[in-house]
Amino acid sequence: MINESVREEFQKIVGDDGLYDHEEALVSYSYDAFTFEGMPEVVLFPKTTKEVSAIMKVASRENIPVTARGAGTNLTGGSVPARGGIVLVLTKMNKIIEIDKENRTATMEPGVINMDFQKELTKYNLFFPPDPASMAIATMGGNVAENAGGPRAVKYGVMKDYLLGLEVVLASGDVMMTGRKTMKNVTGYNLTQLFCGSEGTLGIITKIIVKLIPPPETRRTLQVAFKDLDDAGRISTMIFDGGILPVALELLDNIFVNIIEDYAHVGLPKEAEALVLIEVDGPEVAVEAQVEKIHQMCEELDALDIKVARTAEENDEIWKARRSAYGAEAQLRPTAIAEDCTVPVAQLVPMFREVAKIAKKYDLLIPIVAHAGDGNLHPQILTDIRDKEEMKRVEKAIDEISAKSVELGGTLTGEHGIGIAKVGVLPMEIGEVGIAVTKAIKNALDPQNILNPDKIVQMN
Amino acid sequence: MINESVREEFQKIVGDDGLYDHEEALVSYSYDAFTFEGMPEVVLFPKTTKEVSAIMKVASRENIPVTARGAGTNLTGGSVPARGGIVLVLTKMNKIIEIDKENRTATMEPGVINMDFQKELTKYNLFFPPDPASMAIATMGGNVAENAGGPRAVKYGVMKDYLLGLEVVLASGDVMMTGRKTMKNVTGYNLTQLFCGSEGTLGIITKIIVKLIPPPETRRTLQVAFKDLDDAGRISTMIFDGGILPVALELLDNIFVNIIEDYAHVGLPKEAEALVLIEVDGPEVAVEAQVEKIHQMCEELDALDIKVARTAEENDEIWKARRSAYGAEAQLRPTAIAEDCTVPVAQLVPMFREVAKIAKKYDLLIPIVAHAGDGNLHPQILTDIRDKEEMKRVEKAIDEISAKSVELGGTLTGEHGIGIAKVGVLPMEIGEVGIAVTKAIKNALDPQNILNPDKIVQMN
Repeated sequence: MINESVREEFQKIVGDDGLYDHEEALVSYSYDAFTFEGMPEVVLFPKTTKEVSAIMKVASRENIPVTARGAGTNLTGGSVPARGGIVLVLTKMNKIIEIDKENRTATMEPGVINMDFQKELTKYNLFFPPDPASMAIATMGGNVAENAGGPRAVKYGVMKDYLLGLEVVLASGDVMMTGRKTMKNVTGYNLTQLFCGSEGTLGIITKIIVKLIPPPETRRTLQVAFKDLDDAGRISTMIFDGGILPVALELLDNIFVNIIEDYAHVGLPKEAEALVLIEVDGPEVAVEAQVEKIHQMCEELDALDIKVARTAEENDEIWKARRSAYGAEAQLRPTAIAEDCTVPVAQLVPMFREVAKIAKKYDLLIPIVAHAGDGNLHPQILTDIRDKEEMKRVEKAIDEISAKSVELGGTLTGEHGIGIAKVGVLPMEIGEVGIAVTKAIKNALDPQNILNPDKIVQMN
Repeated sequence: MINESVREEFQKIVGDDGLYDHEEALVSYSYDAFTFEGMPEVVLFPKTTKEVSAIMKVASRENIPVTARGAGTNLTGGSVPARGGIVLVLTKMNKIIEIDKENRTATMEPGVINMDFQKELTKYNLFFPPDPASMAIATMGGNVAENAGGPRAVKYGVMKDYLLGLEVVLASGDVMMTGRKTMKNVTGYNLTQLFCGSEGTLGIITKIIVKLIPPPETRRTLQVAFKDLDDAGRISTMIFDGGILPVALELLDNIFVNIIEDYAHVGLPKEAEALVLIEVDGPEVAVEAQVEKIHQMCEELDALDIKVARTAEENDEIWKARRSAYGAEAQLRPTAIAEDCTVPVAQLVPMFREVAKIAKKYDLLIPIVAHAGDGNLHPQILTDIRDKEEMKRVEKAIDEISAKSVELGGTLTGEHGIGIAKVGVLPMEIGEVGIAVTKAIKNALDPQNILNPDKIVQMN
């Protein structure tokens, strides 16, 4: 419970426009993009690291839970205050502190929106690849806390691969800097990587240093429809075996092809079991040759339809179909739960089939979109959260999808995190010893369990 | 102290050919490639994870320090048994368990030698980029424990960037698997990255899963000599600004140019303040254009000499000069201490000048070779460990180089680790809070402080 005098302390730290605790505010920050809800007692908007530190000092003294949050696009309930207390919204700490062209680094506050940052970089002819689907609104702090990925991860990797350093406010309020503006660093434990993906359970990220790379000279996209799902697996293997490392290799199943076509009328062949999007980038001459090579491979596999973008506009046109998937599915059912598992790439097509079996078993509609190039599937469970009976089947289906992914050598989550959604199944992947180590680390850094409690692992 | 009955337990675990404690063996494992020495009581060669686990169970029961070790190429004393006890040599666990072409992963034991692994991969047309200078003898386990880098890190990153998972034996003897054969994974804390670079202080690595990429179609190297050191900084900026991400960009100073030329007679211009090696790779057509572009840039800067390799043999010829640096320096003085600091790339040339000033101040010979593309300098302190007076000056010089690197926004170590060499200066970079967090994590995973004690951080 936050009593009046503690509330006043917080008010003094964040100022008049930094504290909200009227009903509408509390409700607004009680949920994220997942189905789980939790009501906070107060919502705080700090503007500086000093304020975050002061808040954490009071929170730890008073034993108040603190859930950090950016735009709340989290898909596993990671930004929901499971035990009430404080929601710490970092969106007002949204300055790009520095884009250092010479050193190819950028330093920023956690509230910077991914896409704003990417746009700013184009002025410097620099490139930051991580591109989660939510990038138009998601914050960089959230992207770090979740170790966000995106389609471009196949060639360019995910957030962790660009992270050079972090400023972190610990549970105690102490401030720590990890890493520096250097391309290499092996000084001590890799605390930067420990905090990346820790979902706000170990500390509050208040500053981020990332590395940047030169942008590719050009990029080109192919959209290919196959009659047979297996051909999607084949084309993936052929591309990599052909020495081509694509930027992105996306796969949509037949259900999605139909949902999108009915919604957007982009001319997709509705009999296609697989729609594959392939993006390559690099120097003009090399890209041209790669597109040619991939085109030929698709013909060898008797693709139903091959579309090659010749211009940037045509490129965008192709990606529009992929991006409209989430809008299209929303027309069908009120709730979409974005599942997220990653299997070894050779298990991608088998995993598609397993998900289809599970959907049939529980009589659910589960179209799948996948970052096929890295084996990351997003089965979209289309349902209605108000339908209690159906939600029971949904829960069973999710657990079965998780179990099957682990059984096929895969992981519970490729880019959405454990959050609160998968706390129960965590032991399935990391085992008892892994759970013990996770708890030991959590306990070492947050002995009172006030940082985003009940996420990743259940402490008490 | 390891008494007779404990010795027998170990003997039983590792078998007749797995335990050595005669004088010659103990001396052989009392040192690595750094100057510090420590005498073990026993040297054990386990052959399986089960044996490692059994050893750790006895060691933790008996409170015996355990220092894991591969080939002992560590340059900061990381593999020296500072408090005696057990040296755990993992070179007999040297099987490549699997090269999974379809999933582009490999799984291996820690004793596999980096170069053997790389050679094996060529049969599968796959590529593993990390290439530390010691790769011909260094083990993959050591490479993981140190998060090893190498010249190719500019474009391809270091060990951590290829690591998908680890099997680790904890201090207690418990066995944990982190990660899986998937390209993405955000299940729980990133324990894989916490163990990578932890220098054997948190657990014993017994299995390694790495990702692999398609090899580049072709690679080409340029060797360029500049009259002026500043031009080395300029060419680096020009290359990146020109949208080229080189594989490697190495820089040798004038002292090294002379040492190598006197030793190997390869025709280097002895007046050159900087010798720059640039490697680019990719599709043939693109590489050809990049080489042309870089050649032109070098001419604009009035390079003294430009050599372009036209064949794989000529490529190797150029790299021979770089590789002969360590052999050549050994002719001059009996001891070479390979310093290792990394600064933001724009501070590379200033840091070269600072090292030269420090060398002059302490009347020492310190040629520098650098992975210039990522700001990683290796000042080679040429000295004689038996000369007590000179070694005092060497120690002061090392501390000043460390301090200067941190002052310029750099780091204490880019790829050699903290080991025992830099325990004293660690707070300079990570601060008191960083030390406290480091100790908390160490204590959480190794409460008895038996895993490679006195490395990275001093616990008690």
